[in-house]
Amino acid sequence: MPEKVRIALDAMGGDHGPSVVVPGADLALAAHPDSSFILFGDRAQIDPILAAHPRLKAEATVVHTDVAVRMDDKPSQALRNGRWKSSMWLAIDAVKKDEADVAVSAGNTGALMAMARFNLRMMANVERPAIAAIWPTLRGESIVLDLGASIGADTEHLLDMAVMGSAMARVRFGLDRPKVGLLNIGVEEVKGLEQVREAGRILRESPLPHMDYIGFVEGDDIGKGTADVVVTEGFAGNIALKAAEGTARQFAEYLRGAISKSIWSKLGYLLAKPAFNMLRNKMDPRKSNGGVFLGLNGVVIKSHGGTDAEGFAAAINVGYEMVREELLAKIGATIHRHAGETATARVVGGAAS
Amino acid sequence: MPEKVRIALDAMGGDHGPSVVVPGADLALAAHPDSSFILFGDRAQIDPILAAHPRLKAEATVVHTDVAVRMDDKPSQALRNGRWKSSMWLAIDAVKKDEADVAVSAGNTGALMAMARFNLRMMANVERPAIAAIWPTLRGESIVLDLGASIGADTEHLLDMAVMGSAMARVRFGLDRPKVGLLNIGVEEVKGLEQVREAGRILRESPLPHMDYIGFVEGDDIGKGTADVVVTEGFAGNIALKAAEGTARQFAEYLRGAISKSIWSKLGYLLAKPAFNMLRNKMDPRKSNGGVFLGLNGVVIKSHGGTDAEGFAAAINVGYEMVREELLAKIGATIHRHAGETATARVVGGAAS
Repeated sequence: MPEKVRIALDAMGGDHGPSVVVPGADLALAAHPDSSFILFGDRAQIDPILAAHPRLKAEATVVHTDVAVRMDDKPSQALRNGRWKSSMWLAIDAVKKDEADVAVSAGNTGALMAMARFNLRMMANVERPAIAAIWPTLRGESIVLDLGASIGADTEHLLDMAVMGSAMARVRFGLDRPKVGLLNIGVEEVKGLEQVREAGRILRESPLPHMDYIGFVEGDDIGKGTADVVVTEGFAGNIALKAAEGTARQFAEYLRGAISKSIWSKLGYLLAKPAFNMLRNKMDPRKSNGGVFLGLNGVVIKSHGGTDAEGFAAAINVGYEMVREELLAKIGATIHRHAGETATARVVGGAAS
Repeated sequence: MPEKVRIALDAMGGDHGPSVVVPGADLALAAHPDSSFILFGDRAQIDPILAAHPRLKAEATVVHTDVAVRMDDKPSQALRNGRWKSSMWLAIDAVKKDEADVAVSAGNTGALMAMARFNLRMMANVERPAIAAIWPTLRGESIVLDLGASIGADTEHLLDMAVMGSAMARVRFGLDRPKVGLLNIGVEEVKGLEQVREAGRILRESPLPHMDYIGFVEGDDIGKGTADVVVTEGFAGNIALKAAEGTARQFAEYLRGAISKSIWSKLGYLLAKPAFNMLRNKMDPRKSNGGVFLGLNGVVIKSHGGTDAEGFAAAINVGYEMVREELLAKIGATIHRHAGETATARVVGGAAS
């Protein structure tokens, strides 16, 4: 393990560029002083902001580039125009060249995934990447994947995600055997997509020392925290995440409306303010910012494009943790072991069908 | 239109059977005195409860049966054991025989859909059924479908759902041209499932006097109320609904926790109580209870299994409205018109592909 965790930042990514990335990095450094940073982007924009953060400046290198991927670039456009030279590419390339341990970008998801995949390549024995994020629950936190790296998932991809997600849960939550659930529209074994049922059968029948497969879970189980890891294909996963975000926003709006309804409710709010701050804290989407790209030969973290410095710092912190706890090595090791563990169940399934 | 709306009830459905169904019907009758009821189920259980509701008793007939579909029966089991004789079957059959205008059940979804489909059959020109429900939004209410009648949807089914959902929105919201959106994981035309993109292309290129197609919407657009009608296939729709329910429950729990945190927050709550009641009212899942089965030759409403009398009354009210406003006739008429309207776009698409 390197002495410091070396973090490569796409300083031009996101809606606000360096004005969020630089202060965000400064906050992350405060949380983890054993970090160093390489910032890729327009030096003319970065330097003045960096000058206002002397603590970060002492731990940061700036690498200039004129080229930035735009938030509305298609993946193919981003690759065509931004390969070899954009701030996003260079941040990923630093990981590839072992000049950094992790790359963090708030740039557009499709472009970031395309570049990461093109440059870092998939891990051995993993076919497709996945995006995993931390989801706040009534019991604490869970990991949900895939949130939109790809659409549709065959049995193999669902199994890979169970392995990768449980490795991330071991790193993040310090669990020996994280509880893993497959997202489905009913908990009965007869329901749902063919590939989800088949993945469920294999997981049920395989000896899995590194995870505790608990069966199917439904959409409302995510918020309950029934499983530590919830596995689903990217279309449904993305829609679940955004539907939940939409509902949280609705609730916050209703609450705001309710509070400002009368002088009494305003007074009540003032009295209960510490409690409301706690509530706001729990529902704060910035705290769970940071999607982890899994399945690649390198750690890449996607931050929300519209987040602020605190949110960007949370994304960096996720990356820091994944590096410190050796996520990649743990995934690699279990992907290999797993191939053996599920082999029998796969053959049996093949013979029976 | 019949003088009264005739409502057939599966009195044995749901977690609580007649103890919820009968008081629920009584509440619905209070809201719509121009209703009459047929209750199917165990007379020994129904009669004593009905006796306590004289207003309902005067408008209700009880038809006895010993057989009830269980909440955990598989659709095939339910059909095998419950056809011709269960309370669920008889309620649907009353619609088939034109003894009732609508059937309402809190019984298990799979069984109810299987029986409704078997007995009532699909409408002409509709291949597959869908479940539509009313979703509270920041702008009021929207209709979301399919919430799990079937898994996966081809282009044709998505188009049928756009037509059926917009007919339901015209009935429910009194809109001439409801705004219809297709649920996707990005708003760009290049993203998402092939069949969703193809349905989007056809809707965009067709003259649609009965709806206003606004393009793709994302998961968080549902809660915002961006579209009056949100169309998606049943797997993602079911997961979106339950993820949103889970988040609403989380928020409610956090709020409860925050309020009971200190004497000051409790006092604050008391002062703001009318405001909190308003909030609770807005987030009350009972108010939006009642999934409408679309695509069948008859109106069937599915209530949540665990709801109370007020929630069951809401489901009956949805059914009442659909009958009074002639939902079926409106769907039938637009399905026919629609076939013509989209024909050109379909041929063009076929030739181009």
